[in-house]
Amino acid sequence: MSEPTEILEFMHILADRSGELLRKFFRQPLHIDIKTDASPVTEADRQVEAMLRTMIGNRFPAHGVRGEEYPDTDVNHLEQWILDPLDGTRSFIAGLPLFTTLIAYSNNQKLIVGMIDQPVLKERWTGGVGQQTTLNGQAVQPSSCQSLSKAIVGTTSTTYFNAIQAQAFERINQRAANVILGGDAYLYAMLASGNIDVVIDTGLKLYDFCAVVPIVTGAGAIITDWNGQNITLASDGTLVAAATQHLHNEIMELLNA
Amino acid sequence: MSEPTEILEFMHILADRSGELLRKFFRQPLHIDIKTDASPVTEADRQVEAMLRTMIGNRFPAHGVRGEEYPDTDVNHLEQWILDPLDGTRSFIAGLPLFTTLIAYSNNQKLIVGMIDQPVLKERWTGGVGQQTTLNGQAVQPSSCQSLSKAIVGTTSTTYFNAIQAQAFERINQRAANVILGGDAYLYAMLASGNIDVVIDTGLKLYDFCAVVPIVTGAGAIITDWNGQNITLASDGTLVAAATQHLHNEIMELLNA
Repeated sequence: MSEPTEILEFMHILADRSGELLRKFFRQPLHIDIKTDASPVTEADRQVEAMLRTMIGNRFPAHGVRGEEYPDTDVNHLEQWILDPLDGTRSFIAGLPLFTTLIAYSNNQKLIVGMIDQPVLKERWTGGVGQQTTLNGQAVQPSSCQSLSKAIVGTTSTTYFNAIQAQAFERINQRAANVILGGDAYLYAMLASGNIDVVIDTGLKLYDFCAVVPIVTGAGAIITDWNGQNITLASDGTLVAAATQHLHNEIMELLNA
Repeated sequence: MSEPTEILEFMHILADRSGELLRKFFRQPLHIDIKTDASPVTEADRQVEAMLRTMIGNRFPAHGVRGEEYPDTDVNHLEQWILDPLDGTRSFIAGLPLFTTLIAYSNNQKLIVGMIDQPVLKERWTGGVGQQTTLNGQAVQPSSCQSLSKAIVGTTSTTYFNAIQAQAFERINQRAANVILGGDAYLYAMLASGNIDVVIDTGLKLYDFCAVVPIVTGAGAIITDWNGQNITLASDGTLVAAATQHLHNEIMELLNA
């Protein structure tokens, strides 16, 4: 197994390069394709992922790589990289600097280190097992919010909810102090930094959630699936992140009421 | 009547000061009140508006001022200032740098000059009657998009729609290439700059739309209410902005189908 510090150091090199490329594409005319799941993809997504795969392949040739835009490689290797070159493609193509590059490293199915990088704002969160979450090298901490009635709740989009999930979310919406829509992985970074108190999502893919989990837990906040289970590579794509255990308990009761 | 260039010069001074104050409050713990319309308001909203009112009162003592957080003054004067100190308060309190300060100047009910200022990204749009819209002093132009099937459509929140409006928006949602939620006035700035092709909103207040109109028209794009009427101080709070006339026609047909 690689040392987490070595992995993290290499992640910074990866994100420096992906950021350079994304800044070149941002707010420029781009050809947009629509994928089979109706989500948009651009040449920026593809070029960044291809570059990251090449860099990882050169440095750690045996490691597996899973990315959103190309087929998985070496999925049986203990050490895996999980990449979303451009999380929040809709924000990106609309000119909104809330998109991010997500990079995660797992060992034996366990998420060890994660990075969320916003290259326009030049904000980079890292965190993981035994690694305090930082924003640009400064330790961050979640809010101390203890009650949904005082909480700012974020969700990427209510359109991903099925009917039962929509009802569950509505119970939370009615009790929350404020609900904010949109933001994708950036919402979890805001939770780690103490700006948002709860983030709830569903329908996420592996690439969307792997980097987020070490960032949230490394900050001292709580993240599980909608059943209260810890997140693994095999999770179902539902996420509940909360700044405090008390708040997480309150959300779980409402989701399962 | 004041010269538009004199008004614009003074707007820059106003936004320099509002930006300083908002950057101090951004991502800091804030007391949040909930207004009677269920929208949040903070001490940042109130302090910025109070400061802008004082500055306008000192420079143009006879002019009327309408702002979101304090009572209107001198509403019968021909020259009016319309202020939203903090548009997108939900983004602001969630740590997302998409909030803006909106400043508009009207003469005899006609919107003459507008400014949209994002003080974290340090992006400032100005535009108006006979004034080409600029972003940080550089001329911007909308996209040349001619068809909803290729368009990026933004709306601040679908929760402001009544049942009939929601059906109308759904017709657009089904045909649009991409729909993005959230963003408030920042979406109109993105339209003026050619990143978003259509913005559709309803339930807006005077403070939300007055600054947006001169920015959109000064860029050469189209903006009307949902009935196709030009926007005035007496408009009903519905807005349809489109990059091209052809696209605006297509939207209007779908809204009124």
